[in-house]
Amino acid sequence: MSTAKFDLSCPVSPRSAGTITLAHGEGGPAMRRLIRDRIAAKFNGDTVQLHRDAASLGKIDGEIAMATDSFVVSPIFFPGGDIGSLAVHGTINDLAMAGARPLYLTLSLILEEGLPLDILDRVITSIALAAKDCDVQVVAGDTKVVSKGAADGIFITTTGIGEFLGDHRMDSAAIMPDDAIIVSGPIARHGLAVLAARESIEFDPTPSSDSAPLHTVAAALLETLGRDLRTMRDATRGGVAAVLHEWAEESGQAIWIEEARLPLLAQSRGVCELLGLDPLFVANEGTFVAAVAPHRLDDAINVLKQHATTGSPAHIGQVRERQLSSVLISRGLRADQPLDEPIAAMLPRIC
Amino acid sequence: MSTAKFDLSCPVSPRSAGTITLAHGEGGPAMRRLIRDRIAAKFNGDTVQLHRDAASLGKIDGEIAMATDSFVVSPIFFPGGDIGSLAVHGTINDLAMAGARPLYLTLSLILEEGLPLDILDRVITSIALAAKDCDVQVVAGDTKVVSKGAADGIFITTTGIGEFLGDHRMDSAAIMPDDAIIVSGPIARHGLAVLAARESIEFDPTPSSDSAPLHTVAAALLETLGRDLRTMRDATRGGVAAVLHEWAEESGQAIWIEEARLPLLAQSRGVCELLGLDPLFVANEGTFVAAVAPHRLDDAINVLKQHATTGSPAHIGQVRERQLSSVLISRGLRADQPLDEPIAAMLPRIC
Repeated sequence: MSTAKFDLSCPVSPRSAGTITLAHGEGGPAMRRLIRDRIAAKFNGDTVQLHRDAASLGKIDGEIAMATDSFVVSPIFFPGGDIGSLAVHGTINDLAMAGARPLYLTLSLILEEGLPLDILDRVITSIALAAKDCDVQVVAGDTKVVSKGAADGIFITTTGIGEFLGDHRMDSAAIMPDDAIIVSGPIARHGLAVLAARESIEFDPTPSSDSAPLHTVAAALLETLGRDLRTMRDATRGGVAAVLHEWAEESGQAIWIEEARLPLLAQSRGVCELLGLDPLFVANEGTFVAAVAPHRLDDAINVLKQHATTGSPAHIGQVRERQLSSVLISRGLRADQPLDEPIAAMLPRIC
Repeated sequence: MSTAKFDLSCPVSPRSAGTITLAHGEGGPAMRRLIRDRIAAKFNGDTVQLHRDAASLGKIDGEIAMATDSFVVSPIFFPGGDIGSLAVHGTINDLAMAGARPLYLTLSLILEEGLPLDILDRVITSIALAAKDCDVQVVAGDTKVVSKGAADGIFITTTGIGEFLGDHRMDSAAIMPDDAIIVSGPIARHGLAVLAARESIEFDPTPSSDSAPLHTVAAALLETLGRDLRTMRDATRGGVAAVLHEWAEESGQAIWIEEARLPLLAQSRGVCELLGLDPLFVANEGTFVAAVAPHRLDDAINVLKQHATTGSPAHIGQVRERQLSSVLISRGLRADQPLDEPIAAMLPRIC
């Protein structure tokens, strides 16, 4: 962080005392300097367009995918990530799950008056690193400031556009009986990490978020399986349970899973038992569910095992013809039972 | 607004009592129903893609423009518009000012727990009407809910993509001495409307926002003038003064304007005098500044006069070679004086 000196090149006037002020949102020199020196500068030469009304992206040959997400996670920093990297991964993953290669991101910030500038610096640095890591360019941005108490620190909205990798559009209506249901790695990590950080609950080891970009592994899975990959979806809010219920509703099929097959770190299991949480309902940010044709199950698992973010995939269940319940779970020796939908606000603001 | 009944098709559970609850942001059925019944339904058949991870836009032939803006205006409703129509016009205008035809919008909502659902309904209806009016499709969305007190009602982020109309990119570096500076209509309307609504100051007539889409007139101006249109910019936060200062800085030229030529409604003049505001610093949301080659001034004025949103344009000044000050103003009989940059947070949260 630069030291505050009273000269024209300084992004922080002495009055601002190292925090965001309303003047940073007012369209004048304070805003211009904030954007130039503390935001655009972090993206090296890639974001000269941040000052303009609209970025010029050139032509895109293929069909275009577009996705948007707002991020309000609390706390801003948590083991395994922060609101900045999460805002990149979340939108990248929306594009990846649709079968598209992410290309460009926009970045819109809503800042609370009084936010320390060094907090903003850390978040912007994290965004820049995550974008570089995902090989996407941040091309346009906006910054608004609201008075103290009208927002909680920092909210981020990212919007991404990408290019579809082929003509296969993920569609849960393509799911059919006997399809295998796969989860790409240990579940519930993100929600538990945020919860532990928010409530200052100490666990050993500390739960860490799975926040990670999925575009590389998703592209590999799509290339290998083609239309035998029926659909895939990252299991964010509402966890794996939400994905299964959406797919059951959208496809008209039933989905059966076996609890014992769910990949879960030992520490996650312990935290869930202690807090009375079902890991199926806890959010993930770098873990996805895929429905694949049964004869391609091994191929799918092999692809997932070759990528670091999805090194421990598991075949957790299968699609069945709809009977009474849309999502069924086998828990140990008892008969199959319906799996509830996520209903209550179990963990607000996890993303 | 539908009445609340306790059945599966009802978007409002009795517990929610007609307001946004944390469950509306949790990825479960409450969120799905909110999005399906209160958001997607308002866009007719255009937004079936709102449920998916990413929208599929097909191919776009030309070069692509992309812009994003967050909107935090307070109050949500004001004479001449609301946060919904403003969120559409604002991003449309960013694309329009860059010389692009707007095509698609994404819509990301941050809602405060307790927000009345009928307020949300009004805002979404306003967004849908404005998008239809601008001939753009809302293709993807996101909804987050934060607990009471962690946001102020509703924040909206829109991101737009469009297609450049030709190969002329607006660039303030193209501004040169003797260029004419034009403003497209009466200034300061939006900021005064929001200020009067927020502070409940009664004026007769009530100041009304100029919020309006500028893509049609911008395209006409670009088509008529070609590269004789050096650049254009909507005079939002910081008003006309902010645009002139940005252009002076970016072009290295000086800009001189004459106060007496500024188009201003009589009521705006009265409100500014009463409150001690300089209309040059007050925000607009449907009014822009253009720099044009001097021999095309009449052509530019004629184009603007043919469009309802810009029916009363004015030639307010000219570009000069840089001397001591970057922006100069002639106020009545006195010698030219420097025009300040907008510095203080005069009117926070006007957009």
